[in-house]
Amino acid sequence: MAVYTEVADDELHAFMAGYDLGNVLSFKGIAEGVENTNYLIHTDAGPQILTLYEKRVSTKDLPFFLGLMEHLASSGLACPVPVRDREGQMLRELAGRPAAVISFLEGLWVRRPTTDHCAALGQTLAKLHIAGKNFAMNRANALSVTGWRPLYEASGNGADTIAGALHHELGEELDALEKGWPRDLPQGVIHADLFPDNVFFLGKEISGVIDFYFACNDALAYDIAICLNAWCFEPDAAFNITKARALLRAYTALRPFTEEELEALPILARGAAMRFLLTRIYDWLNTPAEALVRPKDPMEYVRKLRFHRGVGSARDYGLGE
Amino acid sequence: MAVYTEVADDELHAFMAGYDLGNVLSFKGIAEGVENTNYLIHTDAGPQILTLYEKRVSTKDLPFFLGLMEHLASSGLACPVPVRDREGQMLRELAGRPAAVISFLEGLWVRRPTTDHCAALGQTLAKLHIAGKNFAMNRANALSVTGWRPLYEASGNGADTIAGALHHELGEELDALEKGWPRDLPQGVIHADLFPDNVFFLGKEISGVIDFYFACNDALAYDIAICLNAWCFEPDAAFNITKARALLRAYTALRPFTEEELEALPILARGAAMRFLLTRIYDWLNTPAEALVRPKDPMEYVRKLRFHRGVGSARDYGLGE
Repeated sequence: MAVYTEVADDELHAFMAGYDLGNVLSFKGIAEGVENTNYLIHTDAGPQILTLYEKRVSTKDLPFFLGLMEHLASSGLACPVPVRDREGQMLRELAGRPAAVISFLEGLWVRRPTTDHCAALGQTLAKLHIAGKNFAMNRANALSVTGWRPLYEASGNGADTIAGALHHELGEELDALEKGWPRDLPQGVIHADLFPDNVFFLGKEISGVIDFYFACNDALAYDIAICLNAWCFEPDAAFNITKARALLRAYTALRPFTEEELEALPILARGAAMRFLLTRIYDWLNTPAEALVRPKDPMEYVRKLRFHRGVGSARDYGLGE
Repeated sequence: MAVYTEVADDELHAFMAGYDLGNVLSFKGIAEGVENTNYLIHTDAGPQILTLYEKRVSTKDLPFFLGLMEHLASSGLACPVPVRDREGQMLRELAGRPAAVISFLEGLWVRRPTTDHCAALGQTLAKLHIAGKNFAMNRANALSVTGWRPLYEASGNGADTIAGALHHELGEELDALEKGWPRDLPQGVIHADLFPDNVFFLGKEISGVIDFYFACNDALAYDIAICLNAWCFEPDAAFNITKARALLRAYTALRPFTEEELEALPILARGAAMRFLLTRIYDWLNTPAEALVRPKDPMEYVRKLRFHRGVGSARDYGLGE
């Protein structure tokens, strides 16, 4: 939620002269994106986002992220499109950082998603998975099951400062996930971070999906498990099965689940809760007090994880009855 | 440089329904404005700024600031115009804060102003002063000469942690300013904070002046003294007389100085340097490490103050020869 890298007006003019976007009419640093610096630029050719990639994003992954956005947009998914400069490049450098200009998407993200929003999300997620099928590049999911133990160990007993005996509880859960994690589910490109702030709506329609900087190849159903966590719980931690059913039905209408996916849904949901819980715990324990970004509350995901542990089958998510 | 107050999408929709601006297409918190929270909103009627006034701005002053912008804009000055809601109100409430929608101005602020930029500034400042003459409301300048001693005393010997014996040096300077401060100069509405980041350019033309939240009634020439400090020094602290001459000539071509103003220019410039030095010292000593806003370096204004103390007459600023 911050501008980490300041760009001067003359630097910006020189940079933007490389694009076929006409004059720069304004530029404002925007308080969005935890990882990168984003400017909203008004140009003669319309509004654009200028992103400067900060240290937490690995430079070698940028061609995957930008290429994926271009691929998905050309397949008809509403998402930002990297603008190529006059030499055909999507990725350049500005103020000592890798930088890209990306088309601006109108729309607002929804703080309190309704069942309608969840249904729209399910449909869009299925479209994303279908459109991603013939994308040629690959990127492993650094935050899948094999990435969790190092994160868990990095926080160690510190987790117990968040909730008593949490370190032990997560250790047992991690053992179970590593043992039971499904490995043969249908794979493809997943968004991997499709929280409400990454989905823009105009009215009840999705106007676009943003922030592909965690996208990777993994089990498609794992992406749905992330969305169940991010969209289908109420502020009081109650699971809203009506929203989950709407999401899952809209998704499976376009891409039906295999029997194995249906069966794996509860463990995938536990894994997804674990993944966000572990990064939240890490950030909670390691964000300096003077940081520009406030860490998110890990307890929200402790409660979600505990809910999923009590789930018997995909029926509990509103599917299959 | 921060979003202090978060606004949810449904709160925003409810608020914006009070205006005749059509649909809200997007809104982004922008990293501009140290005192207030600003959102850039795209609406069917074009881009707007939504400002939420935070604690440092006194609510009782808001009708003056908003009324002034409306007055200046209707007098032909390029500045943001407060948008009135369907009931004719400029000032409303959102998320527990006083809030206003203000027209968005295209343009970029210039990090390294040239002589041409300074000339354009002089002309615009004169227009602002002329347009302000028949504005009916009044607001005293809380940061004029009588406001400096309390600020000076609030920092006390802390100033010496910035430069050795600075507390003593400023005490002597303050005595001299209080004794010699001119009281009978032509008065009017001044901007009082016309730094480069408050002046937008499109090419060499000024597209607008923003941030009227220090505006007040005071000596018109004091506003020029602020600009001499803010626009006419180089990064190495050298005074650029060519820029000052361009600024002053462009200004006086539209509003000639009186003899008294010409004579007072050096002490006004010392006073303006003192005013920004004192608030910078205060902020330097009192900004907590975890603050979202980094304080500005006071030493820049120590050097400027020392320069003005060596000035003999307005001739040294490029005028009167």
